[in-house]
Amino acid sequence: MRIDIITVLPELLESPFNASILKRAQEKGLVEVVVHNLRDYSTNKQKSIDDYAFGGGAGMVMQIQPIADCIEKLQAERGYDEIIYMTPDGETMKQGMVNTLSLKENIIILAGHYKGVDERVRELFITKEISVGDFVLTGGELPAAILSDAIIRLIPGVISDETSALTDSFQDNLLAPPVYTRPEEYRGKKVPEILLGGNHKAIEQWREEKALERTKTRRPDLLD
Amino acid sequence: MRIDIITVLPELLESPFNASILKRAQEKGLVEVVVHNLRDYSTNKQKSIDDYAFGGGAGMVMQIQPIADCIEKLQAERGYDEIIYMTPDGETMKQGMVNTLSLKENIIILAGHYKGVDERVRELFITKEISVGDFVLTGGELPAAILSDAIIRLIPGVISDETSALTDSFQDNLLAPPVYTRPEEYRGKKVPEILLGGNHKAIEQWREEKALERTKTRRPDLLD
Repeated sequence: MRIDIITVLPELLESPFNASILKRAQEKGLVEVVVHNLRDYSTNKQKSIDDYAFGGGAGMVMQIQPIADCIEKLQAERGYDEIIYMTPDGETMKQGMVNTLSLKENIIILAGHYKGVDERVRELFITKEISVGDFVLTGGELPAAILSDAIIRLIPGVISDETSALTDSFQDNLLAPPVYTRPEEYRGKKVPEILLGGNHKAIEQWREEKALERTKTRRPDLLD
Repeated sequence: MRIDIITVLPELLESPFNASILKRAQEKGLVEVVVHNLRDYSTNKQKSIDDYAFGGGAGMVMQIQPIADCIEKLQAERGYDEIIYMTPDGETMKQGMVNTLSLKENIIILAGHYKGVDERVRELFITKEISVGDFVLTGGELPAAILSDAIIRLIPGVISDETSALTDSFQDNLLAPPVYTRPEEYRGKKVPEILLGGNHKAIEQWREEKALERTKTRRPDLLD
């Protein structure tokens, strides 16, 4: 899989893709992540990529020309399954959407910034708009990193224990049950007795009950 | 404001806090972000901070001792308004929650990793559990960065134009209206006529209509 990220702040994305699992996934050749500096595609002397909004008002708008040139250069090199724009008014990111995207071959992720992109970028190029949630950030770079992280960890071979991914929250619409590790007792707080015995069937059942209980209490909406 | 982030992957958080607005906010002294390497608080020779889950199963669990020691060291130095744990089964992050947190003085953010923390960490120390959304990531580091970013940009003086933040999506339960910048025409696609005139009242009205229209189409749930 190949993920191309287009951004005005490539330096912000350096460490997330050079640490831990995402780094190893790239080293193993399981995914290629290429970050593009939008300013490299600006045709003006100042290398600016934003301008004032027509109609006035606070905040700058990302111009269409550098974005169009960057996307079209990439499209000339290979086909893309999706051209995604990270924006607060996009479709809310969910695990199911991530599962689907993890099966694609090549995707582009455009990180929004300032007041967002000129609307015509969305009309002409974008195939999917994604929001990480109902909150506003300084830019779409961290959301682009989050989307990439969620996708990459699902690529076979990326995380060492694939059953671990399958028992995560959301894969079956249930939150994960509580987990415990050593010591057995900490400041008077003990690990539930059942987890210390060797009855795997009983442990499995306890975990299912706790997962359901926790989901009912915290996120009843997931059970609808 | 001071934000302490506790993580097993401090290197992952380097670039997000050293770029752009978050960097400037720290340079201006508006916020102090301190990242703590959890391994520094491990008392064993291997500096390990995780162990197998009681009851078996895939995935490691973060141990209570290093986390407890790190939090208590910080608490001895200053009072904290919230000790937040980033976890997929936490309360879903929303703009209102971010607004409230931006008024706090000191907060700790614990980034979950692996299968999460020993349940007793949550019982003994955590005052608030937050999820960035219904999806699973390799760790809570990017969510911790996202939460910090959302909070920091609301601190007065951090973004240059505060009216810009007020017209963002979600601050009034409406998505933002479309925005346009130069050129007026791009590949036959023109900027809406009304934005090119100087009638500010009409422009304001058009934007309100478009914001409402877009919210109705994309996120009717926000209008409930």
